[in-house]
Amino acid sequence: MENRVINKRKIINDPVHGFITITFELAYDVIQHPYFQRLRRIKQLGLSHLVYPGANHTRFHHALGAMHLMTNAIAVLRSKGVEISEKEAEAVTLAILLHDIGHGPFSHTLENSITDALHHEDISLAFMEELNKEFDGRLTLAIDIFKDDYHRPFLNQLVSSQLDMDRLDYLQRDSYFTGVSEGVIGAERIITMLNVRDDKLVMDEKGIYSIENFIGSRRIMYWQVYMHKTVVSSEHMLINILNRAKYLFRNGADLFASPHLKFFLENDIDEQNFSRDESLNHFAMIDDADILSSIKVWTKHEDLILSTLCQYLIDRKLFKTTISNEPIDTNRIEELKEKIKVKIGIEEADLKYFIQHHKLVNSAYTENYQQINILQRNGQLKELAQASDNLNILALSKPVEKYCLCHVNIH
Amino acid sequence: MENRVINKRKIINDPVHGFITITFELAYDVIQHPYFQRLRRIKQLGLSHLVYPGANHTRFHHALGAMHLMTNAIAVLRSKGVEISEKEAEAVTLAILLHDIGHGPFSHTLENSITDALHHEDISLAFMEELNKEFDGRLTLAIDIFKDDYHRPFLNQLVSSQLDMDRLDYLQRDSYFTGVSEGVIGAERIITMLNVRDDKLVMDEKGIYSIENFIGSRRIMYWQVYMHKTVVSSEHMLINILNRAKYLFRNGADLFASPHLKFFLENDIDEQNFSRDESLNHFAMIDDADILSSIKVWTKHEDLILSTLCQYLIDRKLFKTTISNEPIDTNRIEELKEKIKVKIGIEEADLKYFIQHHKLVNSAYTENYQQINILQRNGQLKELAQASDNLNILALSKPVEKYCLCHVNIH
Amino acid sequence: MENRVINKRKIINDPVHGFITITFELAYDVIQHPYFQRLRRIKQLGLSHLVYPGANHTRFHHALGAMHLMTNAIAVLRSKGVEISEKEAEAVTLAILLHDIGHGPFSHTLENSITDALHHEDISLAFMEELNKEFDGRLTLAIDIFKDDYHRPFLNQLVSSQLDMDRLDYLQRDSYFTGVSEGVIGAERIITMLNVRDDKLVMDEKGIYSIENFIGSRRIMYWQVYMHKTVVSSEHMLINILNRAKYLFRNGADLFASPHLKFFLENDIDEQNFSRDESLNHFAMIDDADILSSIKVWTKHEDLILSTLCQYLIDRKLFKTTISNEPIDTNRIEELKEKIKVKIGIEEADLKYFIQHHKLVNSAYTENYQQINILQRNGQLKELAQASDNLNILALSKPVEKYCLCHVNIH
Amino acid sequence: MENRVINKRKIINDPVHGFITITFELAYDVIQHPYFQRLRRIKQLGLSHLVYPGANHTRFHHALGAMHLMTNAIAVLRSKGVEISEKEAEAVTLAILLHDIGHGPFSHTLENSITDALHHEDISLAFMEELNKEFDGRLTLAIDIFKDDYHRPFLNQLVSSQLDMDRLDYLQRDSYFTGVSEGVIGAERIITMLNVRDDKLVMDEKGIYSIENFIGSRRIMYWQVYMHKTVVSSEHMLINILNRAKYLFRNGADLFASPHLKFFLENDIDEQNFSRDESLNHFAMIDDADILSSIKVWTKHEDLILSTLCQYLIDRKLFKTTISNEPIDTNRIEELKEKIKVKIGIEEADLKYFIQHHKLVNSAYTENYQQINILQRNGQLKELAQASDNLNILALSKPVEKYCLCHVNIH
Repeated sequence: MENRVINKRKIINDPVHGFITITFELAYDVIQHPYFQRLRRIKQLGLSHLVYPGANHTRFHHALGAMHLMTNAIAVLRSKGVEISEKEAEAVTLAILLHDIGHGPFSHTLENSITDALHHEDISLAFMEELNKEFDGRLTLAIDIFKDDYHRPFLNQLVSSQLDMDRLDYLQRDSYFTGVSEGVIGAERIITMLNVRDDKLVMDEKGIYSIENFIGSRRIMYWQVYMHKTVVSSEHMLINILNRAKYLFRNGADLFASPHLKFFLENDIDEQNFSRDESLNHFAMIDDADILSSIKVWTKHEDLILSTLCQYLIDRKLFKTTISNEPIDTNRIEELKEKIKVKIGIEEADLKYFIQHHKLVNSAYTENYQQINILQRNGQLKELAQASDNLNILALSKPVEKYCLCHVNIH
Repeated sequence: MENRVINKRKIINDPVHGFITITFELAYDVIQHPYFQRLRRIKQLGLSHLVYPGANHTRFHHALGAMHLMTNAIAVLRSKGVEISEKEAEAVTLAILLHDIGHGPFSHTLENSITDALHHEDISLAFMEELNKEFDGRLTLAIDIFKDDYHRPFLNQLVSSQLDMDRLDYLQRDSYFTGVSEGVIGAERIITMLNVRDDKLVMDEKGIYSIENFIGSRRIMYWQVYMHKTVVSSEHMLINILNRAKYLFRNGADLFASPHLKFFLENDIDEQNFSRDESLNHFAMIDDADILSSIKVWTKHEDLILSTLCQYLIDRKLFKTTISNEPIDTNRIEELKEKIKVKIGIEEADLKYFIQHHKLVNSAYTENYQQINILQRNGQLKELAQASDNLNILALSKPVEKYCLCHVNIH
Repeated sequence: MENRVINKRKIINDPVHGFITITFELAYDVIQHPYFQRLRRIKQLGLSHLVYPGANHTRFHHALGAMHLMTNAIAVLRSKGVEISEKEAEAVTLAILLHDIGHGPFSHTLENSITDALHHEDISLAFMEELNKEFDGRLTLAIDIFKDDYHRPFLNQLVSSQLDMDRLDYLQRDSYFTGVSEGVIGAERIITMLNVRDDKLVMDEKGIYSIENFIGSRRIMYWQVYMHKTVVSSEHMLINILNRAKYLFRNGADLFASPHLKFFLENDIDEQNFSRDESLNHFAMIDDADILSSIKVWTKHEDLILSTLCQYLIDRKLFKTTISNEPIDTNRIEELKEKIKVKIGIEEADLKYFIQHHKLVNSAYTENYQQINILQRNGQLKELAQASDNLNILALSKPVEKYCLCHVNIH
Repeated sequence: MENRVINKRKIINDPVHGFITITFELAYDVIQHPYFQRLRRIKQLGLSHLVYPGANHTRFHHALGAMHLMTNAIAVLRSKGVEISEKEAEAVTLAILLHDIGHGPFSHTLENSITDALHHEDISLAFMEELNKEFDGRLTLAIDIFKDDYHRPFLNQLVSSQLDMDRLDYLQRDSYFTGVSEGVIGAERIITMLNVRDDKLVMDEKGIYSIENFIGSRRIMYWQVYMHKTVVSSEHMLINILNRAKYLFRNGADLFASPHLKFFLENDIDEQNFSRDESLNHFAMIDDADILSSIKVWTKHEDLILSTLCQYLIDRKLFKTTISNEPIDTNRIEELKEKIKVKIGIEEADLKYFIQHHKLVNSAYTENYQQINILQRNGQLKELAQASDNLNILALSKPVEKYCLCHVNIH
């Protein structure tokens, strides 16, 4: 009877992977923790839902999905004779479950705006260490794997590499919720082809086309979803709003915000002063809702810059954005600036809130970082770009640079 | 060139139906309106995502999907010789687009808690009339159809009946985002079988099995998703939180809340005093985020009842709920009440915040309300339950009653 | 090296269930056997592809899919504490793999036309016993389970009952390949809810809606696909062709046919004379292709009845069929017969080849045969129709009778 | 009433695209013709089902699917202002419907074995001309478009180019039925992005990533499905069987075969002597079933070579195949030949039936043949490889060469 109750709570419906089973008690307890439950309130793809209205999925769901793929990967590797102890299996499961726990409101979008240049991985680590205290050190091995401090590197690679469970889940999940079918990958097939040699993650040769498809899909999702010009535009606006709010706070204004969000608007939190309990606990209390509810109130604020940006974002009157293969013409920028000054009624120094340009760089595959090695039929390893039968992968490993110009609509 | 730009904005990616094309300029303008954009921030299924983590889809997406099905339905009916003028087509498209615009935060969950017993349909109508002013009366026919004041009833039936585009969309959409495959229906097939006789909506005979499946699926979604005991539990908690917050406000406390939410916490807004511009505009500014960000702050409030409920909901420590076919044993309720008083430290009068029981009633199909008529091969009409080849449909039209007990966990 | 090769052959791509892994060596060997490979050439749904052009899937694919679900069911039951030995697991896997091996050309359609009233289950058993000799008795336990001669009935129930892996696979598979979305069931979810009490298969209470959906879907597939009037029509024609060919053979004619098919056209093979090696081996050599290639040649045969039927079937000029809830009017039948005699130019005695009427009966659920028991939260068992919260299931267990009239088009 | 009957027959269930509507009477009549119905009995992917057991879909289904996409493409182009007359729309619909009607048994596999070096396109044309006679010249424009003799080249390009409806359908369809998710393409999205400039087919710029995905997917399907080594192996065996049967026939043997198949086994039918009515009508009567039923009989033939090949293929004891990036080592071939001679007991001259090696060449994209032009936002055209933002497409347009060795297993 009691058994059934426990079983029940451990199966989660996932339209992407079917049913997710939580295989470790400790994973279950971690999922119940408020730090983890918080991820339910953080969208995986920031503001992408403004373009793809189905993209409201959360970091919570992604973390569970990645955990599910990890369960499968462990089973596949064990079936090929790779020894993985129960302790290691639990630890790598916890590591993937917690890999994104440090994300704040709107995930990557505000990664540098809530705190000051703190990567979400660092905050993830801070959360893990805090949890490790609460769970009496039972997360130590998970943390070692996450930090790549464990002597069997393939476990870290399953969490963080060019073929990790993170990517396999998010590509499939983002494709499912956006409806961009070009992002469909054969995650199940790729996992079936994983293997380990000398404690490093490798890929059986016959999985090579799946990998190529995976890399190609990731590149397409990058440009078509993550860097979609309307997404880029709205994310700029959101960042500028946060920056302006911080500026106003630090110049004595008092804006409507939840106390926890206020903490970050009033204080510069960077790597040095983050680890204090205070920052972490404030951080644990903010999510998308704090930002959104404030922005709506700020639409009526007396500061013209803040209220204009907020009104535009809430009503989805987004900045005009162009992404092109050539650098932006400087004259065009100057021309636009003049018009914007007049239209909005602002000074030169505040133009940065309404016009921006920068470079976007993406490599679909990186030969020199955590390269993907192919286990050939003759038993030898070959780096993916070398093993592939054409120039394709090599081409994909060349960084693509694009130029982005983003400004308030002047018509 | 300009053409292309417009076209581009008019195609929306929908993982459920593929691509959604906006076929009327006016529909496009309505979608751009802040009243409509607001629906992006209101979850279709309230708190169901606490059980089905994928269920974060919004009223915005649902409205677009229902509009898409309406476009298809119009095309099917026209291809069968039913005359529908462009003006009627536009109006019925607008009517379905706007049918849910009156939903507030967390959709049905808080329908009676934000305002006082105001149905979302009434608020939808208020929004439509407001929009009609802004759009110079171009929504008049849409409003007539919505109110069933137009002389061709099938147009209203496409918007609101047992076979409307609303249901066809939400069943398919809720099934997609929850991953509950039992909810899959043949919406495309059902639409293909629609027909009109004497200006009333009917179903071609060979669609009868699809209809039966649709009714069965709806029943399953009702009990498995919409009335899932954990969903019911969390929604109770949310309602109780709002009630307690209102109580505190009206007794002089000041709680953290956005100004627009405060308006509804401080004032009893009912059918009488709603139609004022003030209420509508405040209502237009609140959504899920206002509620969520307040609840998090309220977890630290000095009122024990409020803070306890908020903390439990945020951390997903949900009420224990049982749903059974027999009435709840009164003795058990009394027993529980005693234990709860002790555990939480509250008085009799406040027990209502921590324990509740009530009846749930559902009819999968209602013979007497907007019945579904089948157009038989011999050209005659027959009501669905009569036309069906067994007792199945008749059985489904019998209301099912269940009894729900929901209380704070006492262990 | 050798390892990898074996692994490779043991993973099979299935669009319905994802990847199918063959978990037992012996299952692998059985699959390789020509008796089993033959199933690749037998369509699962006879002539349904004439209505649903995607329905070309085979008995081979279905058997693998059912085996896959069995693997999952075993894992679920074991995780709930049901003890299943490796030997039992292997045996029940083999039993489901082989449950349909006795199907002949076009599966059910010709079940009574190739041989004389021999059920495919009997032929399956004959094949299993033959294979058991070749595999040195290693199939004995599988055969016992298949015959329900083993002391743990749930193993037989997994193979053959109202909730067996056979039905769970074929509903999902037929739905996938026909595109009839009403047939979608939650097979994965149902399996997750399986349990065993007193060595009998039961269902956890919270799976009850999935079961209801499953029963409803099966009913819909029955009438919409399996008994679709055009399918029924074409299957009648095929049966009549076989009957006529047999008649001609036994009256001295020599028709084009492969030697193995000829054996069955020339001889009456029934339960008595089947078990001889001769019949089984001839049977093992025929499949859809023998029938089809003969029919095409027979379109030019001098016998008017045979050639007419063959030409009509090959060119898809199918019999006109009506399926109605009332018995067929006798006068109408007589009238049709007169017209057919004139049109085709045949005598009274041969009318049976061109006009037929009969009753179709289906119960979606049968209370008295292998009933489905629900394991309630209080630990007690209740039969499904009793446990269900409305009349729905009871209604579904009432047999539906329809009347079918099928005749050559007289226009 | 009559209307409804006609409508009914014109909607076809397709699990890939949903519902297929036949929009032209003439298309409906052509589909009913025995020449077209024959395609129901020809598998789209030859023997690929030996590796992907779901791949039993037919040329018939593919032709309908391609027609469906054509209907959509016409609607999209018209909505962008491209003028397409009803006559042109009907003709291009018929052209795509009939583009593959010349395929014989097992599609491409036996393309050079049934007849002598006759391409299926030539036979398609012969069928079209024959049908054109029967339909009183109403197919003339369709034939002109098919032959690219019409003055608006985009119509031919919709039927036959690097972006034609043929490819868009078969990739999606083959992916659906094999379950190879890497082949999923955004066909609907690609069609939405089609455009016409100067009567040539072009692609709107924002479709560029979909095109890249499409080209990548096609490459993957090529190597993973169409040229899968086991598929290649079985197709070699089938070709060799046909060749041996022809050899025996021409040396006086009489093998079991349907009369229509015999015609092609006894006679060398090439471009010169094909167009006679005789060949075409014989060709119209053969399909997969003739081949399969003969092969089974031939397993007992006295010719060792024929019976061995047939037995191996029927029992799926396939040739061992290796596909590698380097040319096959000559010594290894010689070694194998010696062993095969001994094992099978054949002479040098007959080794060709049991061992073969050859080069496979594929270009995922061809710059110089029917290149894909991108319509940029500035209104100018750019060839795809030039318009793409990296070397990827250029890489894909380089032909890939692989070396294939295929021989009877010698163990």
